[in-house]
This record gives sequence, C-alpha cells and structure tokens, in this order.
Amino acid sequence: MDGRPSLEPQLDDSIYFADGKLHLLDQTLLPAETVYLALDTPEEVAAAIRRLAVRGAPAIGIAGAYGVLLGALSAGDAPRAVEEEARRAIEVIGESRPTARNLFWALERMERALEAGPREAARILSRLEETAEEIALEVIETDLALARAGQEVIGEGARILTHCNSGPLAALRYGTALGVFIEAHRLGNEIHVWVDETRPLLQGARLTTWELARAGVPYTLICDNMAGQVMKEGRIDLVMTGADRIAANGDSANKIGTYALAVLAQAHGIPFYIAAPGSTVDLSCPAEPDIVIEERDADEVRRCFGKLIAPADAPVYNPAFDVTPARYLDGIVTDRGVLRPPYSENLKVFSH
Amino acid sequence: MDGRPSLEPQLDDSIYFADGKLHLLDQTLLPAETVYLALDTPEEVAAAIRRLAVRGAPAIGIAGAYGVLLGALSAGDAPRAVEEEARRAIEVIGESRPTARNLFWALERMERALEAGPREAARILSRLEETAEEIALEVIETDLALARAGQEVIGEGARILTHCNSGPLAALRYGTALGVFIEAHRLGNEIHVWVDETRPLLQGARLTTWELARAGVPYTLICDNMAGQVMKEGRIDLVMTGADRIAANGDSANKIGTYALAVLAQAHGIPFYIAAPGSTVDLSCPAEPDIVIEERDADEVRRCFGKLIAPADAPVYNPAFDVTPARYLDGIVTDRGVLRPPYSENLKVFSH
Repeated sequence: MDGRPSLEPQLDDSIYFADGKLHLLDQTLLPAETVYLALDTPEEVAAAIRRLAVRGAPAIGIAGAYGVLLGALSAGDAPRAVEEEARRAIEVIGESRPTARNLFWALERMERALEAGPREAARILSRLEETAEEIALEVIETDLALARAGQEVIGEGARILTHCNSGPLAALRYGTALGVFIEAHRLGNEIHVWVDETRPLLQGARLTTWELARAGVPYTLICDNMAGQVMKEGRIDLVMTGADRIAANGDSANKIGTYALAVLAQAHGIPFYIAAPGSTVDLSCPAEPDIVIEERDADEVRRCFGKLIAPADAPVYNPAFDVTPARYLDGIVTDRGVLRPPYSENLKVFSH
Repeated sequence: MDGRPSLEPQLDDSIYFADGKLHLLDQTLLPAETVYLALDTPEEVAAAIRRLAVRGAPAIGIAGAYGVLLGALSAGDAPRAVEEEARRAIEVIGESRPTARNLFWALERMERALEAGPREAARILSRLEETAEEIALEVIETDLALARAGQEVIGEGARILTHCNSGPLAALRYGTALGVFIEAHRLGNEIHVWVDETRPLLQGARLTTWELARAGVPYTLICDNMAGQVMKEGRIDLVMTGADRIAANGDSANKIGTYALAVLAQAHGIPFYIAAPGSTVDLSCPAEPDIVIEERDADEVRRCFGKLIAPADAPVYNPAFDVTPARYLDGIVTDRGVLRPPYSENLKVFSH
C-alpha cells in the first residue's frame, strides 16, 4: 500500500461526513438520478439503511458508525446525555437490518469507543468521530488489499459471473468482488463480467452495470434465471460475489440467488468464490442455522422499480439473502489473502 | 371424456374465431387490463405472436392455424389465389418465432389440409377452417387428458414449483402444467403452487398468479433467483413446467430458467417433470443441438414492464428459452400418460 488513503471526500464517494451531516448517494435512484441525502439523525440513517438508500455490507457498516456519531452530536454538552444518545443510536441502527455482519461489527466498535476513555462530552465525541473515520479508512484499506489478493484466482481473460452489487457503492472507493474485477481490468487483464440483474431490487442491473461501465470493464447483463444457461454454454470461468456474513465454518450469507449460483457452478465444474473483508466474518456465529435472514416487504417482488407487475394482493415470499454452505466455496477472497478449506481453521486469521 | 368439447366461444377463452376475425386476449397487458385484439391478416397474427400478445406453445399453434385461414379468406374466389395466400401466410407466420414445436405442427397440418382435397376455393377454405377448428379442439382435448394423466405424479397436498405460464392462456381452456395443478385442486387435493416470476417478461408474476387466483389454487410468488432457497428450505415436493419443444430423445426446450430449475431440483433430490401434449414432441429433432433457441431484444432485459432498469446501452444476452437435457427429467406428462425413460423409446407413442 502506498501510504494510508485519505478520508478527504473524493468526487465519486458515495458516503462522506461533512458539516455535521452524513452524506449518502441515494442508491435507490441510480442509475437514472444521482442524488445525495444529507442525514442529521440516527433515525434517518436507520431509515436509509432499511430502504436501501445505502446498501452493501461494508457501506452500511460505515453509515451505521456515522449514525452513532450523529446521535451523540445531537445530545449537547452533558457527558451522560452524549453517552445515552450514542447508545440509543446503536440500538436504533442495530434494528435496521439483521443479516450483514459489518453493521454489527461497526456498532460494536462504536460502543467500545464510547466506553474506552475519559467521560467528558468532547472526549467521547472525538473518540466516536475517530472511530467512525477509522472504520471508513479500514474499509478502503482492506478492500484494496482484497482487490489485490483476488488477482490470484482471476485467470487471464477470465469470464466471470457475479450477482448483486459488491462495488465501490457497496463499500467505499474499491468494493469487494467488483473491486477485484476493476483491479484486474486496471492491471490489463482483459476480463469479461456477466452481471445477474438481481431481482427484486435490481442491484446488478442498476448498480453493477453502472460501476463497471464507469471503470471501463466489458460486461453483459442477464436476468438471474439465465445464469445456468450461460454456464451450460461454457461461457463462465468462475463465479465471484460479495458476502454479508461469513460464519465461523465458512457458510456465507449473500444476496438471495447466490446459493442457486453456487449449486449451478458446482454442477458445471465452475469455481465459486466469495469476496469479503474480515469485518464480514462472524466467528461468534458457528454455521448457517445461526445466520438470521431478513425477509422484506412483499411489494418489492410485486413491483419492479415501482411498477406493479403482479396482482396487488399476490402472496409473496421475499427473503433478502440466502446462505451458501461452505462446501460450495472454492475460496474466500479476503484482505488477508485467499482462504481455502478447511475454513473453520483458516478463518481464525480474523480472531483478533 | 364426457363427449367432445365445443368450440363455441366461452366467457374466458383467450382465443376465438368469429365474424371472420381472430380474437386474441392481449397477454402483454395482463393482469392490469383485459383487452381483446381482432386480427384480420396473417401479418397481424405473426406480429401478435412475435410481440407475445399470444404466447404459450399450444396457443401460438392455434393462432398460427387461424392466421393461415385469415390469409386464405383474403384472397377472393380464385382457387389459385386462395392457395397462394394460404402458403404466404404459412411462410409469414412460420417466421414469427422459431422454438415452439406446436406452431410448426399446426402450420404443417394447415399445409396438408390445403393439399388434401378438391381445389375449389370454397372447398379449400372449408378444409382450412375445419383444420384450424380441429387443432383448437385437439388442444382442448389433449390438455384435458394431460391434466388427468398428471394426477399420478401430484401427491396429496403437494407443494409444486413452476416457471413461466402453462395455463389456459398458454393453450385454450385447460393448459398443460397449470392444467394439471388446477385439475388437482378441483379434485380436492390441497396443493400449493410456488410461482417463479419469470423474467424478463414476467409471465409467472403476471399470468400464472392471475390464472391460479381465478381457479382458487393457493400460491406464493417468488423471484426466479429464490427457487434454490425455497428448495433448500424443504418446501418443494416437485417441479413441473410446460415445454415448447421436446426432441426425440426427451431433451426439452422451455422458457429460459427451466434448465437451472432442473439442475437445482436434482441437487435437492426433488422430482422434475415437463408437461406437454404430443404436438410439442418433435421426433424429427434428434436432440438438444438441433433445437433453435430464439434470442430476443435486449430491451426486454433492460426494461421491466416498460420501465428502464439498467443503462440504456447496457450490453445484454437474452435467450428466450433453454434446453433441459432428458437426464434431468423424472417424467414427461402427456395426453398419452406420464412417459418415463428411456424417452427415445417411449416418445415413439407420438410417431403416428
């Protein structure tokens, strides 16, 4: 790494803190509109996370941390009030979405910062601000390390299938799986990325295509149900996606549809990789049954980008994530290198 | 069967011929609007097939047959002109969509009717009209036989996953796979149907839900990428879909996404069935490599029900169908009973 990255807002940053507000690029409006939200309160941050204005496991970790800072900043000068507001913010934001590990990882760090030092208001606030900045910087640094580490599994001219969005928008500056692809392209590897549109909320069609186009990476967009056919046609060399939570045994939660891709990849003899930083690893969670899967509103499925596409009262099942059992993973690309089985052993690199 | 069904238009018929016009329920507008088209020419019929105003392998067979009649009816009294217009219609309609066998089966029957008998204009016209009616009647009769035959694979209270639409709209009155489900429900079997929305054109979300609701069959709508997860949760007892073309060895073309479901079903130990009448079987087509797969416009993927959901210039791959190799099929439900492997042998029941 060529020195530490800076948190000075860059032109493309989708998250930055300035003038006492958290600024977020509203991802629900992309690619049609580029609108930044300026959030003042933990409630606004929780709502933005819940409605996916900010999404992607690393990104909601950063947003959550700054949400705690916003709560503390609203409390005035009394140390006790600052602490109470920060704790309330941790609670409010912790209830926004259940699956991504990174959010809880960030909130736990903010809670430790709250407790670890002098209890004067100004000191608490500066610890919270430093910790939020540290979290954002670590996302940038670990994602860059991950993007570099991932090159070892990307062959020359690799044709890669991905699902959902794991780019800069899902994190900050680099992203996870998409960061690996963008780095490969930057290094002159003529890869091609196949992009699942990723219903119901179309993060692939809306966000991944947009980010790949901006980075100049050639891609082809498909509907989710076409992935099996593209594999059968021999047009995919590997599959790589991000992750929202990785259990201690390697079982990995990611956007709904990832599990099906892993099964299809195995049936076609195609390697399947998850890419995620250490903050996504949850060593306190032994395995799949302990991962809570968020079920979201039926209208996300009944509608497509706002337009009703099914009977308005159609019964719907809408799990936002699924879990890919570790046995389907050929490797986990992390900021500490590409981990291979046995994951229960090799994920311990993240135990400190 | 309790006597032969009648072609007298019934209230719900999505296709009927009256007053010298072919009337088609425009399936692109369902479920929001119920609009019938009244078509005068083979070109209009070909366009309606191409833009999926009428879709479903058996249904486009019927529409294609009446399209030939429309061509012949436009020719005046000269036998030679009647014959020429009918042949021109066969050509125009035959170029509308390449994959569904039933369309070519119907056009070949119309062509034989053209040739098999006296060459006076009125006699030709009456042979063409009788043949189109016969085709429609056979769709109704074979689908009813298929719906009854299919009961042997539907266990009590079966939880069934289906893809795309294979109901009355895809045929006439009964449908294929959906006809089996509706018949099971009518017989008091408390089945539950899981419905893939079926991107890009959402025939599952728009049409299958609508037809199941009208028949009172309980269902749950999911996005295509959720099917693997629902299988993993142990909530599916069998998968059944329609088919657009069945090769002599049992390889079966159906809506894109069907192949992935078959692979997923096999990985979860769930039986997978295709349901289709004899007119879908193409014994002149040996196996998968001989089935032409239609590739449709990129905007079908870039848009969802008309709304742009991806960059307007996003490169897209949009195959309308895929082929499920015969080895994935636990059986083919037909009007001649449920066929089992070896299909090369057992599909010969349709050789006459």
